[in-house]
Amino acid sequence: MLRLYHYPLSPFCRKLRLMLAEKRINVELIEEKYWEQRPDFLVLNPSGKVPVLRGDDLILFDSQAICEYVEAVHPNPPLFPSSAEQQYEMRRIIFWFDGKFYDEVTSKLLNERLLGKIQRSAPPDGEILAKALKDIKFHLDYIDFLLLERRWVAGDQMTLADFAAAAHISCLDYINDIDWNRSEAIKNWYSALKSRPAFRSLLADHVTGHRVPAHYWNLDF
Amino acid sequence: MLRLYHYPLSPFCRKLRLMLAEKRINVELIEEKYWEQRPDFLVLNPSGKVPVLRGDDLILFDSQAICEYVEAVHPNPPLFPSSAEQQYEMRRIIFWFDGKFYDEVTSKLLNERLLGKIQRSAPPDGEILAKALKDIKFHLDYIDFLLLERRWVAGDQMTLADFAAAAHISCLDYINDIDWNRSEAIKNWYSALKSRPAFRSLLADHVTGHRVPAHYWNLDF
Repeated sequence: MLRLYHYPLSPFCRKLRLMLAEKRINVELIEEKYWEQRPDFLVLNPSGKVPVLRGDDLILFDSQAICEYVEAVHPNPPLFPSSAEQQYEMRRIIFWFDGKFYDEVTSKLLNERLLGKIQRSAPPDGEILAKALKDIKFHLDYIDFLLLERRWVAGDQMTLADFAAAAHISCLDYINDIDWNRSEAIKNWYSALKSRPAFRSLLADHVTGHRVPAHYWNLDF
Repeated sequence: MLRLYHYPLSPFCRKLRLMLAEKRINVELIEEKYWEQRPDFLVLNPSGKVPVLRGDDLILFDSQAICEYVEAVHPNPPLFPSSAEQQYEMRRIIFWFDGKFYDEVTSKLLNERLLGKIQRSAPPDGEILAKALKDIKFHLDYIDFLLLERRWVAGDQMTLADFAAAAHISCLDYINDIDWNRSEAIKNWYSALKSRPAFRSLLADHVTGHRVPAHYWNLDF
């Protein structure tokens, strides 16, 4: 069986977990506290990052490189659109979430609210927090703008871009940093994703010492 | 004709330029001082980053999303390997260069040596510089390790991963930060790439106020 070394609040792991679950590829989840730099883990991935997907004679890392591989070897159900133009749009949005959105919002809020405390006993930095809480508004408005004329974030078909986006949003919802009153379109889109069986494993995640808002599990929030 | 908004010392632009030149796709190069945040440029790409590829009814940004698109619509000569496993390896290496290598080495050295001065009249920070000069050694040794048993960085075929790697190395060579005595394998690999016609436009780049080392243009360095 495939083994996935992951951390519950990594949006990169969540993107891949959603994809694997949607394609009904079973994996054994192994929680990896990557910041502890376990020597046995560094042998698997010298960069020390999650996710790492491990099979009998297979060690894969880098979430997007893995997702592209999974789509190629398990094409059904398809999570990539068929045309080159639509694939461009899907990748552009994935890189936007995993790059800019992660740097400015997800990593900042997760660190200041939770991971800094867990990993380094570091207190939150009010200035970083305030900046990220300001930035998230612009970013949510951009998602709202995308969903104005589309059913899904990259077009009229659900793709890996929706899973990438939902992976970040779900991590932020875990720490109660999504203002669900800001956009009806985002709420409807996320609600549709959250109801999918693929989402169940994410909603069951739990990080010790943190209390999740009640609506996090609620499909009708 | 396609127009490419680029900056000479952006490794992301260089990766794409090498790919377009190798596939003999003509583009008009427009130098964009992206840090000036020209309103007309922000309309093309709200994130304000280069490269942006513009056609008659086409505006594309994010270098890797564009490269994937270019390979799909101009498959010859191929710059992606054919199997899913080899494509995984190619993408893993591209993301390693455009992610970790860029963050720890390329962006740091370019900023401290040149771009900080040009963009913000900022003096170099000795500590950042020293850290990046230490990190580049580990990274070059990793490339050397890859080339021990491979002709090209991702396998036995020249791929986009070689262009991604050469894009970073060429920017660093421009500011004389590559120690060519460190690895014979890297020197031979880069020499083979540098001799390709696709490389000519890069070698002709010039940033005002900076003197390039003599070997930068030299094919037999």
